[in-house]
Amino acid sequence: MTTMEVLQRTAAVKTIAAMQSTEAKSQALLAMADALVANTESILEANAADVEAARQYIGEVMLDRLCLSAQRIEAMADGIRQVAQLPDPVGRVTDTVVRPNGITIEKMSVPFGVLAIIYESRPNVTSDAAALAIMSGNCCVLRCGKEAWQSAKAIVDALRAGLASVGLPQDMIGLVEDRTRQGAKELMTAVGYVDLLIPRGGPGLISACVQEATVPCIQTGTGICHIYVHGEADVEMAVKIIENAKTSRPSVCNAAECCLVDRSIAPAFLPALKERLVEGRIAKGLKPVELRGDADVLAIIPATASVAEDYDTEFLDYIMAVKVVDGPAEAIQHIGLHSTHHSDAIITENIGVAEQFVMAVDSAAVYVNASTRFTDGGEFGLGCEMGISTQKMHARGPMGLMELTTYKYVVRGRGQVR
Amino acid sequence: MTTMEVLQRTAAVKTIAAMQSTEAKSQALLAMADALVANTESILEANAADVEAARQYIGEVMLDRLCLSAQRIEAMADGIRQVAQLPDPVGRVTDTVVRPNGITIEKMSVPFGVLAIIYESRPNVTSDAAALAIMSGNCCVLRCGKEAWQSAKAIVDALRAGLASVGLPQDMIGLVEDRTRQGAKELMTAVGYVDLLIPRGGPGLISACVQEATVPCIQTGTGICHIYVHGEADVEMAVKIIENAKTSRPSVCNAAECCLVDRSIAPAFLPALKERLVEGRIAKGLKPVELRGDADVLAIIPATASVAEDYDTEFLDYIMAVKVVDGPAEAIQHIGLHSTHHSDAIITENIGVAEQFVMAVDSAAVYVNASTRFTDGGEFGLGCEMGISTQKMHARGPMGLMELTTYKYVVRGRGQVR
Repeated sequence: MTTMEVLQRTAAVKTIAAMQSTEAKSQALLAMADALVANTESILEANAADVEAARQYIGEVMLDRLCLSAQRIEAMADGIRQVAQLPDPVGRVTDTVVRPNGITIEKMSVPFGVLAIIYESRPNVTSDAAALAIMSGNCCVLRCGKEAWQSAKAIVDALRAGLASVGLPQDMIGLVEDRTRQGAKELMTAVGYVDLLIPRGGPGLISACVQEATVPCIQTGTGICHIYVHGEADVEMAVKIIENAKTSRPSVCNAAECCLVDRSIAPAFLPALKERLVEGRIAKGLKPVELRGDADVLAIIPATASVAEDYDTEFLDYIMAVKVVDGPAEAIQHIGLHSTHHSDAIITENIGVAEQFVMAVDSAAVYVNASTRFTDGGEFGLGCEMGISTQKMHARGPMGLMELTTYKYVVRGRGQVR
Repeated sequence: MTTMEVLQRTAAVKTIAAMQSTEAKSQALLAMADALVANTESILEANAADVEAARQYIGEVMLDRLCLSAQRIEAMADGIRQVAQLPDPVGRVTDTVVRPNGITIEKMSVPFGVLAIIYESRPNVTSDAAALAIMSGNCCVLRCGKEAWQSAKAIVDALRAGLASVGLPQDMIGLVEDRTRQGAKELMTAVGYVDLLIPRGGPGLISACVQEATVPCIQTGTGICHIYVHGEADVEMAVKIIENAKTSRPSVCNAAECCLVDRSIAPAFLPALKERLVEGRIAKGLKPVELRGDADVLAIIPATASVAEDYDTEFLDYIMAVKVVDGPAEAIQHIGLHSTHHSDAIITENIGVAEQFVMAVDSAAVYVNASTRFTDGGEFGLGCEMGISTQKMHARGPMGLMELTTYKYVVRGRGQVR
């Protein structure tokens, strides 16, 4: 099927998707989960073919992400079942006004219509994105990386069978079959067919979408996150938070990439940081963090000499840029210039300085005395996550079901004119 | 000054603008209003030069929009003073969660930063847009049509003097001095300097912005608005609403352009419509509406034969396309295909059909038994309006102060890690 045919078929059923009751949507998701498990065999078969083909050109980490098992399929089904329990984001009246002329105006949440999701090689994104789309009253058109395509096809076939089993149109979930670059490009420019495009993946994918999309697009993911250690920080807390933010999962967007430290506390803090991230980790048999510091840092601890671009790099690795600053104003300015406005933190015992930082730092999530790793739909209590927006328009930070809706005004009168 | 210099100077003060208290912002607006009136003479002088130059190439209606008087300047100042009284949209905590691990997460409204507003020849937009920007904690960079540029410059000079008089940076309000097409283009592509672009003007300006902007942009304005007269409509109410929606101000985006009528009621309704919009208006010495109907319409009343494109045209004139449909499903389908998703209405006494229409029509404002002309920030009770969004991302419908803000998450802990 051509991409345009997929788009047309999906757009044709979006009103049906939008008008389903909460119960109907929950039932649909449970049926999708059951169908996924019932089709374990065919999904594993498709996945084995993907893995076999990909083995020649992708590394072990990527291969592991691609690989499915009966347990992983069961976990995907459980993920869908959890989404089925979440509150319905559609049809909420968030504002009602009765105007002096007697017209009533309601502001009501409604689905976008068709969500397009472009992602890479993790097959679980297929079921996850589809479940979030259906539960928020949207349809979806999915486009996964070519190395996971057969798995995605088998998963989508199962999910569509689940929809059909409860009497809903299978076309509420579509898959782009064109595995060339053109398939993605067509989605990005399908004005009138795609109501919201959400890229999920690495920086290359995201910047391609942001630059080439002519449909509404959410910029997600890239995180150059900072932790600023203020002069009045608790050094032990600072070191503990930075270790967590840097090393608990270095490959994710909410991992910290840069540490700023006040000149006054640097002599006490930097040796403690090095002890925890380098020697301490080596002693535990863990991979140490490479610290890249400016001249002021190198005057206190041995480290790699940093270059300018280290302060603009999302390492996604056991590497951290470190810089000495002269107080909150310089830290805030540095973050303003170098942050991707994802998540930035201050460690301080001074409440006034913390508030100053909170107000002045223009990022999706601003932290005081906690790890940036909490920027996540689950951790924020949204129950799920379609991605983390780093833009300011529409949604910012973790996007849950509510962020997959827009609103409309419903105006009721008895013949009023202006 | 080059456009890039204007952008850099504005961006440099956005944190200051964002951190002003409600009172400071109100005071700034009152000072801006006073400065506007105090500079009446220089503004009128600049405006006279604009009018003189423009007289050669623009028509009377446009010339009237361009023309200022002491009274109009006073009205502009009053407009600013009204905005100064509105509730502050910044710093509202719309959600607070305390997570099981003890971190607290607040969702807080914050300004975008720098708003860019590209508009045409109405000088009052200059003061209006600047006031809305400052009150919502934003800075603004304005770019007006070349025929109003001298007026805009004089107005901006006055507004900047007002800011300075209360100790705020004048650069919170910037004006693009490059009057060529390049000036607008630079604004549309100033990634990192412009946080939100809002075009205010005709379809040409808006589509240029939507197509060429690489900064976040709100699609505003174009309105192909429908009124569907259901078989169970009150004919008198329908005719009254359509007359208002079509003729009270045909040049605006919330004016109705197309009337759909059920086959069952067409024989009763169409003659009444023609009587009201054509003969009735002629008898009152008013301009009659040209009705353009399909074959079914022409079988009932004399009218111009419509062509396909009449159903996709924003006439902005005393012209209305009319079409007979076979019930709500066809009406909803027609609106889905031909509406610009601005404002669409149903006239019916049947509550069930009304609800069906409300749910299925995917427009910013959906009306039951009222005129589409109410889609307006003032009429909706927002107190002001920066424009009417016809997109689904971020804001939909009239944009007031709240829609000029985004939000951030503020996370506070005591050393929590994940």
